[in-house]
Amino acid sequence: MGTELLLGQIVDTNSSFIGEQLSVAGIDSYFQTKVGDNWDRIKDALLLALDRSDAVIVCGGLGPTQDDITRGVIADVMGVPLERDPDVEDRIRSMFGTRGRDMPENNLRQADVPKGAAVLPVQPGTAPGLLAPLTVGRDEKVIYAVPGVPWEMQQMITQAVLPDLQRRAGITATIRSRVIRTWGQSESGIAEQLAPYHDELEQRGHATLAFLASGIEGLKVRLTAKAASAAEADDILAKEVELVATILGDSVFTTDDESMEQVVLRLCQARGITLGTAESITGGLIAQRLTDVPGASSVFRGGVVSYSSDVKHDLLGVPRGPVVSDEAAEAMALGACRVLGCDASVAATGVAGPEPQEGHKPGTVFLATCVDGEAGSLMVRLPGDRERVRQFSCISVLDVLRRRLLARA
Amino acid sequence: MGTELLLGQIVDTNSSFIGEQLSVAGIDSYFQTKVGDNWDRIKDALLLALDRSDAVIVCGGLGPTQDDITRGVIADVMGVPLERDPDVEDRIRSMFGTRGRDMPENNLRQADVPKGAAVLPVQPGTAPGLLAPLTVGRDEKVIYAVPGVPWEMQQMITQAVLPDLQRRAGITATIRSRVIRTWGQSESGIAEQLAPYHDELEQRGHATLAFLASGIEGLKVRLTAKAASAAEADDILAKEVELVATILGDSVFTTDDESMEQVVLRLCQARGITLGTAESITGGLIAQRLTDVPGASSVFRGGVVSYSSDVKHDLLGVPRGPVVSDEAAEAMALGACRVLGCDASVAATGVAGPEPQEGHKPGTVFLATCVDGEAGSLMVRLPGDRERVRQFSCISVLDVLRRRLLARA
Repeated sequence: MGTELLLGQIVDTNSSFIGEQLSVAGIDSYFQTKVGDNWDRIKDALLLALDRSDAVIVCGGLGPTQDDITRGVIADVMGVPLERDPDVEDRIRSMFGTRGRDMPENNLRQADVPKGAAVLPVQPGTAPGLLAPLTVGRDEKVIYAVPGVPWEMQQMITQAVLPDLQRRAGITATIRSRVIRTWGQSESGIAEQLAPYHDELEQRGHATLAFLASGIEGLKVRLTAKAASAAEADDILAKEVELVATILGDSVFTTDDESMEQVVLRLCQARGITLGTAESITGGLIAQRLTDVPGASSVFRGGVVSYSSDVKHDLLGVPRGPVVSDEAAEAMALGACRVLGCDASVAATGVAGPEPQEGHKPGTVFLATCVDGEAGSLMVRLPGDRERVRQFSCISVLDVLRRRLLARA
Repeated sequence: MGTELLLGQIVDTNSSFIGEQLSVAGIDSYFQTKVGDNWDRIKDALLLALDRSDAVIVCGGLGPTQDDITRGVIADVMGVPLERDPDVEDRIRSMFGTRGRDMPENNLRQADVPKGAAVLPVQPGTAPGLLAPLTVGRDEKVIYAVPGVPWEMQQMITQAVLPDLQRRAGITATIRSRVIRTWGQSESGIAEQLAPYHDELEQRGHATLAFLASGIEGLKVRLTAKAASAAEADDILAKEVELVATILGDSVFTTDDESMEQVVLRLCQARGITLGTAESITGGLIAQRLTDVPGASSVFRGGVVSYSSDVKHDLLGVPRGPVVSDEAAEAMALGACRVLGCDASVAATGVAGPEPQEGHKPGTVFLATCVDGEAGSLMVRLPGDRERVRQFSCISVLDVLRRRLLARA
């Protein structure tokens, strides 16, 4: 809920959180609706939601200002008045007291509760959450209202709303997921390779499969299982993950949802190899991604961003001549190992666009790796805009190094 | 749309983008709904949306796999069959042709178009967007379908959907925004400084003010005006932006919503100065951000990511001893200018966490700049986790360089 959300002034991470938590708790969630701070439209959205669902979670609009009308609308939907809750009023007064600040009077609006509704037992901030039971036709339904402030919302959802929902639903089942990540094949290629398995899986009926192209994070294959206990769901997933990994072979770079950088750093560490980078087209992105991983310093020594041709020639020893070529990429990789004193390196040079360079179209990239003093390279043509070309270059060259390190072992 | 969204597996930035664009284009948007990849529920959501709105934008479900059912559901809602569009089929075949990859047959599903619908004239990827006109009761309505891939969706929305929507709506009132970005003061500091102006603005009543702390993008101050024409709104904004910029002084680094990197590159270019980086704590982030700007190559020569102490000492000439210090930061900045052959540089060394280093707590960062052979540095204590510390280091050190360049002119 909220006009700021509709206007895109803030990104809605709350509904992602709530969706994920509901899924993990085994509660089916079918609809999410955002609606502006308008009484009639909120009321319509609530009535519709109650018509098609057993429970509705409303997020936001519980603050102290005149915009915060959720309490009133819920009372309207229930057909009851708002009543000031003396316990909540005391709590709000004392919260302001302990922080030594004068309390604006309108904060007490937050103590208004629809008659027949209860205040949620968890209240991290000043805004109380609500649990509003109501009868629709012959059915007992419930509205939960939580604040839009993420940390307040999250505590209320996990500690109060989910347990209540599970109790009402008589939930016994648990849903768990595992994510396999792949690189080197298209989404449709992976889907085709897994098609016979997918059919078998549907017949077994205890797990589902989904694909998600995720840019620099790789192409994700998610297995989800529903079972009576978490342990049982995990057992099912362990077997299915192994089957998928066998079918997809060396395109799989992780069965534990790691990033490509984590995987490469782990492989280097296991082999006692130090790593460096020489970047032109990626402009520092590879180094930045590697150093995003806590503990990278045990493997990663550093990098050279050789954006201008002079830096390529003078610092990395790339021969004078074309800088968008196999030779230049390999010289960059060798130069990185020499200048940074590392055992292995990755290098990328190419055309990010929008303009062509040295006669090559945007998306033309030369990727090189160096391991044990031996450099190798390949040319790739990458789709998309400047940012995507840079991101695909990063994961692609790290994937080449990953395959070389695996072959070396 | 999409099960991944409901399950919270990906955060929904698309609906924020669409909401913001609609708002700027002067189109009222009242509802956003997310629904899983289920035929009946998508159909119900579409029928409901058509009932309460004149136009509906559907995002996602246009890919090549069996999950991608948006095309079919729209045809169902229109009461028409799907027909394969030969032009789109040719385009898809030729896209695969130029990349030299075999095309899985199911990609051709993307050429299926509901009879009576048109393909959007903008198609950045393989998935075509749709414009599906239909009659509901006595009213002419329209469904737009765009892919869920952000860069494809964004191009289609701005270049095809919005112009069509504005034409249909006969838009006359226009909402326009300008964003001023600042660095160096807290959000509450900026708000306090602007409080008297804010009151005046409310009395004038033709524009509104909002603050948005945006991490590495700076602290944004957004002015929004509504007027009969874009030109009139722009005139109002030009005057108000000047007032705000005068009040906030040199904390303002742009009145045109540029990134700090764009501003620094522009200032360097105007002074004929080349730029380099020496990064430890930021691990390549500064170089990556600078090279995100198209045309950076006219100013930015390159960078050294000196993550290990050896690279600091051996390549950049940092004296043996502590590497988290003013001296080390200044030596890095001087070393960058020497090794990369550039006129100015920025350098950052510090503790990103989670562990302390050389007796300094996480968040302790030394920032240095070098201009005309003269290095200077300062220590900052930055809040937040590893990622935030790195991001704040990046914008903070570039801001120091910005102020030095302005003082030099």
